[in-house]
Amino acid sequence: MDIFKEGLNFDIGGILSIALPVVLKILLLIIAFIVFVPIGKKVIEKTIQKAGKSEKLSPGRVKTLEKLLVNVFSYVMIFVFFVMLFAIFAIPIAPLLAGAGIVGLAIGFGAQGLVSDVVTGFFILLERQMEIDDYVTSGGYDGIVEEVGFRTTKIRSFDGTLNFVPNRLLEGVANHSRGNMRALVDIGISYEDNIDEAIAVLERVCAEFQEDERFKDGPNALGVQGIGASDIVLRVVGQTENGLQFACERDMRKRIKLAFDEAGVDIPYPHQVNVEKMTK
Amino acid sequence: MDIFKEGLNFDIGGILSIALPVVLKILLLIIAFIVFVPIGKKVIEKTIQKAGKSEKLSPGRVKTLEKLLVNVFSYVMIFVFFVMLFAIFAIPIAPLLAGAGIVGLAIGFGAQGLVSDVVTGFFILLERQMEIDDYVTSGGYDGIVEEVGFRTTKIRSFDGTLNFVPNRLLEGVANHSRGNMRALVDIGISYEDNIDEAIAVLERVCAEFQEDERFKDGPNALGVQGIGASDIVLRVVGQTENGLQFACERDMRKRIKLAFDEAGVDIPYPHQVNVEKMTK
Amino acid sequence: MDIFKEGLNFDIGGILSIALPVVLKILLLIIAFIVFVPIGKKVIEKTIQKAGKSEKLSPGRVKTLEKLLVNVFSYVMIFVFFVMLFAIFAIPIAPLLAGAGIVGLAIGFGAQGLVSDVVTGFFILLERQMEIDDYVTSGGYDGIVEEVGFRTTKIRSFDGTLNFVPNRLLEGVANHSRGNMRALVDIGISYEDNIDEAIAVLERVCAEFQEDERFKDGPNALGVQGIGASDIVLRVVGQTENGLQFACERDMRKRIKLAFDEAGVDIPYPHQVNVEKMTK
Amino acid sequence: MDIFKEGLNFDIGGILSIALPVVLKILLLIIAFIVFVPIGKKVIEKTIQKAGKSEKLSPGRVKTLEKLLVNVFSYVMIFVFFVMLFAIFAIPIAPLLAGAGIVGLAIGFGAQGLVSDVVTGFFILLERQMEIDDYVTSGGYDGIVEEVGFRTTKIRSFDGTLNFVPNRLLEGVANHSRGNMRALVDIGISYEDNIDEAIAVLERVCAEFQEDERFKDGPNALGVQGIGASDIVLRVVGQTENGLQFACERDMRKRIKLAFDEAGVDIPYPHQVNVEKMTK
Amino acid sequence: MDIFKEGLNFDIGGILSIALPVVLKILLLIIAFIVFVPIGKKVIEKTIQKAGKSEKLSPGRVKTLEKLLVNVFSYVMIFVFFVMLFAIFAIPIAPLLAGAGIVGLAIGFGAQGLVSDVVTGFFILLERQMEIDDYVTSGGYDGIVEEVGFRTTKIRSFDGTLNFVPNRLLEGVANHSRGNMRALVDIGISYEDNIDEAIAVLERVCAEFQEDERFKDGPNALGVQGIGASDIVLRVVGQTENGLQFACERDMRKRIKLAFDEAGVDIPYPHQVNVEKMTK
Amino acid sequence: MDIFKEGLNFDIGGILSIALPVVLKILLLIIAFIVFVPIGKKVIEKTIQKAGKSEKLSPGRVKTLEKLLVNVFSYVMIFVFFVMLFAIFAIPIAPLLAGAGIVGLAIGFGAQGLVSDVVTGFFILLERQMEIDDYVTSGGYDGIVEEVGFRTTKIRSFDGTLNFVPNRLLEGVANHSRGNMRALVDIGISYEDNIDEAIAVLERVCAEFQEDERFKDGPNALGVQGIGASDIVLRVVGQTENGLQFACERDMRKRIKLAFDEAGVDIPYPHQVNVEKMTK
Amino acid sequence: MDIFKEGLNFDIGGILSIALPVVLKILLLIIAFIVFVPIGKKVIEKTIQKAGKSEKLSPGRVKTLEKLLVNVFSYVMIFVFFVMLFAIFAIPIAPLLAGAGIVGLAIGFGAQGLVSDVVTGFFILLERQMEIDDYVTSGGYDGIVEEVGFRTTKIRSFDGTLNFVPNRLLEGVANHSRGNMRALVDIGISYEDNIDEAIAVLERVCAEFQEDERFKDGPNALGVQGIGASDIVLRVVGQTENGLQFACERDMRKRIKLAFDEAGVDIPYPHQVNVEKMTK
Repeated sequence: MDIFKEGLNFDIGGILSIALPVVLKILLLIIAFIVFVPIGKKVIEKTIQKAGKSEKLSPGRVKTLEKLLVNVFSYVMIFVFFVMLFAIFAIPIAPLLAGAGIVGLAIGFGAQGLVSDVVTGFFILLERQMEIDDYVTSGGYDGIVEEVGFRTTKIRSFDGTLNFVPNRLLEGVANHSRGNMRALVDIGISYEDNIDEAIAVLERVCAEFQEDERFKDGPNALGVQGIGASDIVLRVVGQTENGLQFACERDMRKRIKLAFDEAGVDIPYPHQVNVEKMTK
Repeated sequence: MDIFKEGLNFDIGGILSIALPVVLKILLLIIAFIVFVPIGKKVIEKTIQKAGKSEKLSPGRVKTLEKLLVNVFSYVMIFVFFVMLFAIFAIPIAPLLAGAGIVGLAIGFGAQGLVSDVVTGFFILLERQMEIDDYVTSGGYDGIVEEVGFRTTKIRSFDGTLNFVPNRLLEGVANHSRGNMRALVDIGISYEDNIDEAIAVLERVCAEFQEDERFKDGPNALGVQGIGASDIVLRVVGQTENGLQFACERDMRKRIKLAFDEAGVDIPYPHQVNVEKMTK
Repeated sequence: MDIFKEGLNFDIGGILSIALPVVLKILLLIIAFIVFVPIGKKVIEKTIQKAGKSEKLSPGRVKTLEKLLVNVFSYVMIFVFFVMLFAIFAIPIAPLLAGAGIVGLAIGFGAQGLVSDVVTGFFILLERQMEIDDYVTSGGYDGIVEEVGFRTTKIRSFDGTLNFVPNRLLEGVANHSRGNMRALVDIGISYEDNIDEAIAVLERVCAEFQEDERFKDGPNALGVQGIGASDIVLRVVGQTENGLQFACERDMRKRIKLAFDEAGVDIPYPHQVNVEKMTK
Repeated sequence: MDIFKEGLNFDIGGILSIALPVVLKILLLIIAFIVFVPIGKKVIEKTIQKAGKSEKLSPGRVKTLEKLLVNVFSYVMIFVFFVMLFAIFAIPIAPLLAGAGIVGLAIGFGAQGLVSDVVTGFFILLERQMEIDDYVTSGGYDGIVEEVGFRTTKIRSFDGTLNFVPNRLLEGVANHSRGNMRALVDIGISYEDNIDEAIAVLERVCAEFQEDERFKDGPNALGVQGIGASDIVLRVVGQTENGLQFACERDMRKRIKLAFDEAGVDIPYPHQVNVEKMTK
Repeated sequence: MDIFKEGLNFDIGGILSIALPVVLKILLLIIAFIVFVPIGKKVIEKTIQKAGKSEKLSPGRVKTLEKLLVNVFSYVMIFVFFVMLFAIFAIPIAPLLAGAGIVGLAIGFGAQGLVSDVVTGFFILLERQMEIDDYVTSGGYDGIVEEVGFRTTKIRSFDGTLNFVPNRLLEGVANHSRGNMRALVDIGISYEDNIDEAIAVLERVCAEFQEDERFKDGPNALGVQGIGASDIVLRVVGQTENGLQFACERDMRKRIKLAFDEAGVDIPYPHQVNVEKMTK
Repeated sequence: MDIFKEGLNFDIGGILSIALPVVLKILLLIIAFIVFVPIGKKVIEKTIQKAGKSEKLSPGRVKTLEKLLVNVFSYVMIFVFFVMLFAIFAIPIAPLLAGAGIVGLAIGFGAQGLVSDVVTGFFILLERQMEIDDYVTSGGYDGIVEEVGFRTTKIRSFDGTLNFVPNRLLEGVANHSRGNMRALVDIGISYEDNIDEAIAVLERVCAEFQEDERFKDGPNALGVQGIGASDIVLRVVGQTENGLQFACERDMRKRIKLAFDEAGVDIPYPHQVNVEKMTK
Repeated sequence: MDIFKEGLNFDIGGILSIALPVVLKILLLIIAFIVFVPIGKKVIEKTIQKAGKSEKLSPGRVKTLEKLLVNVFSYVMIFVFFVMLFAIFAIPIAPLLAGAGIVGLAIGFGAQGLVSDVVTGFFILLERQMEIDDYVTSGGYDGIVEEVGFRTTKIRSFDGTLNFVPNRLLEGVANHSRGNMRALVDIGISYEDNIDEAIAVLERVCAEFQEDERFKDGPNALGVQGIGASDIVLRVVGQTENGLQFACERDMRKRIKLAFDEAGVDIPYPHQVNVEKMTK
């Protein structure tokens, strides 16, 4: 009986000394989660709504961002809760995680691109770097944005091709649909032509186009941009409404050609001086 | 006997105090797995079926995705179960894993490409970036998709070559089989030709093709696209049914050449002005 | 004696309490290995045989793959067994492994290429991306495959060079020995020639070759492929048996040249318009 | 009762020996934070203000930098406090963190670009590498800076495109708006012209421009920069006010051309010696 | 005395309970090494000798490989022995190793290249990718192999330069000294020449060279390889003994030129059609 | 009372056995720091001063380096002291650090560039790779060094642009301001000219310049550097004072041209043999 | 007193049981270092001297290598000694090291280049890849080696620029100062010239140069190297003393030109066949 007594009272003491903190820990854990999780969700929602307002995002997009982030947060919290519960019960979760480490390393590296996609996509949306129907150049792709997703952005090239581009490739975005665009025409005149006269012709053409309401900052003749192998290059530059720059350039090219023809200014072909040598 | 008594009762106490939690842990572990594994499988199946519906995937493909992911999940769970069992019996699994670490590091890095392949392949299928018989350009390969696998995609080049491309190389996919394609012809006329007259000829040709039902958005003459060294370049652009753009361009080129011949509009050869210098 | 008694009985108790679980662990470990290793081998063999059947690999290759993987598995298991044995005897294997860590890091990175080679080589064999005597282009090498190894592939260039290429460089494989190949001839006619007439000549030549059994899909004249600086480019395309495309193209080129000579169609030299300017 | 007594007095002792240090630790932790956090904030504020003064940053920018860094510091401190609190209560935070490790690895790599952006952005602001309205070339983008953010910088290209560039791409910054700029004109004269005479003409033109107040270091004729295939190349170089270099170059080109025309100096076309061979 | 007795007998017990396993561990460790090290050496020797036989390496090279690997093995074993000895005596080797970790990380990365060199060098030797006096192209270097070392390979360029190339740069090896080499001559004839006649001339020349014993597979005229801007390109191809391909090509070029001269077949200069335009 | 006695005397013993080593450790730690920190500072100062002397750095730069390194050392020591203090009090700093690990990983990678900048900057200063007003080419930037900082170097391009270059981009530095520079002129003479005569002319010109004190190693005519398509290229090379090489080359070009004109040596234009073909 | 007795005798026992092994460990550690450090130094010295002898390094260089490595070894040993001492006293060095881990990671990556520099520099010296005054091409730099350091190598370009190149950029070294160099001249003759006659002229010139003692393997005429657009290219190749190849080539070019002039062999200008077309 003495044996039993000593052995058992030791046991009870030991189990009690183990069990008590465990229960306390579980309670603390549950309380921590009951308090923390809703607060976390609220913080996310508030942050997104505030960011949405200051960035003037549409309510729809704010809703999307909000929902996505709250979902991610919930999944992570559930995972965390179970990991901590296992750890309190001293079920060895660490070796499991270590065991998953080798696989995890590979997956981590492999999924790294995915995270990059989402992070970049998040900032594309938040900073409104591109919106649907914008004409952009990014990551070697050039065309009209059809859809901006969290992982992939769809860009329609001008030849009709639909490009699926992972966001991480869209590092720097050149957006051609923000503000006025430049219309620029370089035109060569021959060495024999009078430069001032040619510029005067260009200025008359420019004056016509300055009336054109497509031009926001009327085209002007800048002067001698370069001395080519066979011609003197003159430059005309203006600012047009967004999207009309190509049409304006086409119209200006045609108008300048006609004006030069009228004024007798020559757009020269490549020249070559031939020195004839009869011997040999 | 006192010795025996003290020594043994200590042993029994010690073993009991070790054995009890072990049995409890094992039971908990088994229960956790009995509860968790089927739930996990169901969640995967539901998620795939839902994703399949919203993405309108064919039932066959949904089945494939489902089966693949459930398989992967099962293998991982079996591995996890044994690792945790070993850990509960305190058989040192950690050094084993650490010992595997050096090898694992190498393998992890080596297999990293494999994971990238599967992740990218998963999204190619899910986002339907390419489907069999699509004409795509991606990762430097250009041709018709013959098979999209989880690791490798087979693309048949137009010269008959069969390309085996690991999915990770297919980062951005340019799919030429989604929607109408552009037919574009640039044609040069000589400086002496009347631009308006040439455009009128082009517009007559365009009018003919606008009747052609292959064109979804009839070809139009845009105007002076550029002033070349020896010619004025005019551009004609239209939208055709997918896959017919090359045939349409060929027909347009032939028709424009003939129309220009009839109208006496000249497509010029390269020009050069020769200045003769007799001395030297 | 009391001292001895207490000291010793404590010792015996302590040793027993240490020795017993150790023996149990060793037994468990040995049993685990006796059960696990043959199962593992069987699983590998079955998997390879099944994969071999579904991929229609030759029995010889299946044997090779099987043997290789079983060998690797055996070595790893022996290594694992000794590491766990040491750990049970509490001989500190961990610091040893940690000590090897620095060296291991370097080796891990250095050997990473080796693992990549084996992984890629495994898939080249399994997916039959290339087989001996195939004509392939991959990793910047172009030629006939002489040997596909697990680490290195030997490719014989057409100039006779033997290339030893580590498999990891063979990421995407362009295999030119799978199915019919295209024979394509582009030929320029002069601006003055009648396009329809020239196409008629080409179609007559094509008709001849359509009889040729080397052609699987008879060559056809496609039309005006381009408007060059000095010529109108016409295209003829056909499908030939694998490996005969170059000979077919050579025959077609010769036949077209002769047919054009007979019909009086001109293949033009580069043209240049010379404008003479006497002054200067 | 003896049982109870021994068991309990052991418990009390054990709990006391556990509880006392815990309370002490928590107190120490709280005190440490009460002391450390405000000091940390002050240090940050002082550092930024001092850096701001020595770099002559505007008070607004100093404010922005200060606020940003104090915010980041606060969030990190709150995170640290809770982690340490959990650790004191022996709630196993470590496995949680380990569990988050796999995800964290991926995120760490993915977010790495973000950190690079902020670090680079911080130095762009601190070192004033670019300011709004500066004309810069960096990371392959060329244009006027519209906004420098912590993550993204907006650069307006001259063609009107708005570029969103992550700061990490702006490694080296070429700022064209700091100090005088060079105006350089290279002009070729013919082999037959007298070099000294041509240089004299250039020096006369330079003398005119040296009067021009746009020039900070009057243009000078440097001499024979090269012997070309058909011409002797002369170079004229000057320093102009920032931003006026292109206009100055245009004016100089026009003026030099006119001066050469007056002085009879020839700007030659490409030359070729033609050797006539009649046979063949 | 009671104090002393209790204190000391406790000490003796404690020391004994510590000392006994230590002695046992050391014995086990020494036995393990006495057994393991010679076995390891034998295994290495056997493996190398077997590999040497199956790869038909010269006995000298086998010796070198054997010696090198046994040396490396010995050094590693000595290092391992001392680390484990220190660990058994509980001298803290772990922090030392951890302390070396930061330095080790840097060294590990820095030495990574060294390991790559040795690994690649090992396979170059084992797979006989290149041998002394082979003519190889690899890693951008082209020339005759003078020495293959474990870290560096010396390649003598044809201009006399001696290149020291770290083996890791020799990823893919193009060995030009394995088997027959191709001799290829492309030659253009004029549009006016009779193709069949020119091919007949080429075949007569080929017949002569087929007698030449340097040719392993006599040269043959393949036909019309291309239609150039000014010529019809014909191709002649043959297989020569290794190393004689350049001399054979030189001889064939000279012979073909002479044969064409005799037969009146013209190798044309570039052609240009000049269209004279007098106006302008 | 017996309870109390046993419980308390156990407590006191336990606390004492904990408290004593703690106090000892703290004392040891403080002593270690009092001894170590000033020694460390002295060592740094001495090392820098010694390095400064042997590298002949200016006292100001030595001061800067010294101050910077002592500062960094102090901050690191303070950080180390508090970490060790916390660790002695057993406040769990490890999980905190682990908790910071994920963030730290990202920061570590992000800040990696910063460390590279400082390390490279340190060596640029120490090895005097570039100094203010040196003309350097490095990292794709070319110009005059305006400032060498620890993170960023400012290089002024010759067109006036100020480049802010992070030091890590300045891997290899080409410094054009260290020692004499080469002046090299290549000049072509016609095939009909007498080579020896032309070289004699060049040597006469060289003799003149050898008098010029700007030349450190008088220019010499080297001979026939190449046989061009239309000319025989002769080369003249000399060594000039640093910075005067461009002016010298300009003067030599002008002088050679004049000397050739006088001596009747022809600098030829590109030649072409025209073969006239009338038919076709 | 009973309390005191029990408490204290427990303390003394505890302290003794802690103190004894500590003293033993310290003694063992000191002995280990007294034995190990001089042995390590001797081993390094012996190794270097032996390597120096077998590589025939100059005594000065051996001294430098020896001193450097012994220094590095000493510093590492001192660091190791203190780390182990701290660890024996149980002052927690591990968290300190962990705390330094984040910083260390960054530094490790940043300093990685430094280690690469030293490792590469070590092998450049040991394998004598380049020595002072050698003419080398490596890492994109081309010139004369002025200094090979452990971190940086100074290469003087032929234009006078001094390049500071971190050794890690000098991966493959092309050393142009080891052994004879090739002198090669390619020269074109016209289609009308007699090939055999031209080769005879070349062989006569070669015979002259074979007398020249600068040639180690007299120049020989190889034959028809290529059939150019306008010429037949002949090749002359020889081996010259190191460093004289450029002068030899210049002399050969001049001599061949003169010999061809004498023999009436024509070096042709580019040819073009002009087909005149009058219409259009």
